[in-house]
Amino acid sequence: MGKAEAQGAQPPKYPYFEEETSVEVVNARMGPDVDPRLREVMTVLVKHLHAAIKEIEPTHEEWLQGITFLTEVGRMCSEWRQEFILLSDTLGVSMLVDAINHRRPNGATENTILGPFYVPEAPRYAHGTNICLDGKGEPLVVRGRVLDTEGRPVAGALIDVWQTNNDGFYDVQQKGLQPDWNLRGVFTTNENGEYWYRAVKPRYYPIPDDGPVGKMLAALGRHPNRAAHIHFVVSAPGYDPVITHIFTPDCQYLAEDAVFGVKDSLVADFKEITDPASAAELDFTSPYWAVNWDFVLARKPADVA
Amino acid sequence: MGKAEAQGAQPPKYPYFEEETSVEVVNARMGPDVDPRLREVMTVLVKHLHAAIKEIEPTHEEWLQGITFLTEVGRMCSEWRQEFILLSDTLGVSMLVDAINHRRPNGATENTILGPFYVPEAPRYAHGTNICLDGKGEPLVVRGRVLDTEGRPVAGALIDVWQTNNDGFYDVQQKGLQPDWNLRGVFTTNENGEYWYRAVKPRYYPIPDDGPVGKMLAALGRHPNRAAHIHFVVSAPGYDPVITHIFTPDCQYLAEDAVFGVKDSLVADFKEITDPASAAELDFTSPYWAVNWDFVLARKPADVA
Ligand SMILES: [Fe+2]
Ligand SMILES: [Fe+2]
Repeated sequence: MGKAEAQGAQPPKYPYFEEETSVEVVNARMGPDVDPRLREVMTVLVKHLHAAIKEIEPTHEEWLQGITFLTEVGRMCSEWRQEFILLSDTLGVSMLVDAINHRRPNGATENTILGPFYVPEAPRYAHGTNICLDGKGEPLVVRGRVLDTEGRPVAGALIDVWQTNNDGFYDVQQKGLQPDWNLRGVFTTNENGEYWYRAVKPRYYPIPDDGPVGKMLAALGRHPNRAAHIHFVVSAPGYDPVITHIFTPDCQYLAEDAVFGVKDSLVADFKEITDPASAAELDFTSPYWAVNWDFVLARKPADVA
Repeated sequence: MGKAEAQGAQPPKYPYFEEETSVEVVNARMGPDVDPRLREVMTVLVKHLHAAIKEIEPTHEEWLQGITFLTEVGRMCSEWRQEFILLSDTLGVSMLVDAINHRRPNGATENTILGPFYVPEAPRYAHGTNICLDGKGEPLVVRGRVLDTEGRPVAGALIDVWQTNNDGFYDVQQKGLQPDWNLRGVFTTNENGEYWYRAVKPRYYPIPDDGPVGKMLAALGRHPNRAAHIHFVVSAPGYDPVITHIFTPDCQYLAEDAVFGVKDSLVADFKEITDPASAAELDFTSPYWAVNWDFVLARKPADVA
């Protein structure tokens, strides 16, 4: 018999770990000089982590499967691959963090995730430039304005745009196979807040699914495809920058984007135009696609009176 | 303006991701043929993960710190080091999983964690063998019995024991510096359920703290030390094996074991004996330490009538 029984019903000397009090015992272990925000974050993490374990009641083997999965996710990470971000994306955590941090005033363009394929310092182009450098796919003209929440044009706003080519790959995924800076560029709004450029209709594409996150998606009966989209970062001095996409309404994955990036307000109206005269003006063949898209920027919180 | 505004207050076409409905949207994405247990586990994980994020409201930078921490934990893992298990241990998750899986009948010896230093196939020894092969530390004799929950002796039970040497290291941590199998061995109970062997008083020791988990503990104002203990696995045919420790009552870290492994019922009564005659009989110098410890095994659930 152990000590407790030998000594009768004496209460424990210390608040040792117990299933019932596990959260309090673990959190009480933090020292007095812990950074207050770290203390808050860890307290909440331990609370929900233990709640999940208590609800799941994993066997030892299931716990070890979890450990092994996280270890494989870690092993997949490299300078060129961030499998934990992919895990965060596919579990909706990235979009949740984005939503929490971008509760914008009504009418401002909504954010969505940046994704791993943004490249800073893309070439700056004049309006109308065709950023499709590989000649593949269905031609597209994008036109619109940048406005403030009062509907006034924002002149000199930067519109940083990137998308896949018609095969579903970003230039940086196919170095040497696509022209450098294919389907990337930065445009500047004129005094009326207007911009326009030429490109190609975006295609859906799979997130990298040759790692443990891909295996997880397969086990969950989920595909790895992102709904067809164009990425934008729109910024202007004094305004909260917007990191967003627009989505094509006809993509088969619109309702089931692998990373939950679609928002109703970001689904654009891509029109198919069969008009040889306007096509010729754009140096396009007919039919071609056209989308009108206005971005609405909110003033930075610090600048709100 | 985006589509939603242009079209007025029309409801979204699909249940796109929203902060409020994030859990339901992510979990609804699972396919129809998912393994039912995996579906249950993922549903609960997503629920608590999103609840934690909503309560913490991490900034983008804090989220990235979390991603970076997990990535570093993954990078630290190797054939010889399992940093995710260390993370599970230090957050009380390992003990919680153990507690959930070992809700034993009253009176049976309680489990605690196995730890990373168990080595199967340790030498089998006759009663009384001194398993301390490096001659360091304060001599200890361990005596006791293996009983069933009715108090009847269990003959032929195996007692697999391992502990650190007096410097706080397991033999496998100091290959070449300690004799092979130092402070490890397997004993078998006699017809009265008895066993005894000689060893050395165990010392506290730090868990590996040169990685990200060690950094986390430091940031949380926590030390990495395990309260001094001896490991046991006790097994006999027809009984539920017990994976456990006994702890010395005088260890300065008893109330703050780094992995929450201490239970009140596992703190043993280590007695210091100053009796040259009995010391000489044990081939010990005086004073020496003695501990009596009985293990109580519960019948395997399958064998319960
Ligand atoms: Fe993308
Ligand atoms: Fe240990």
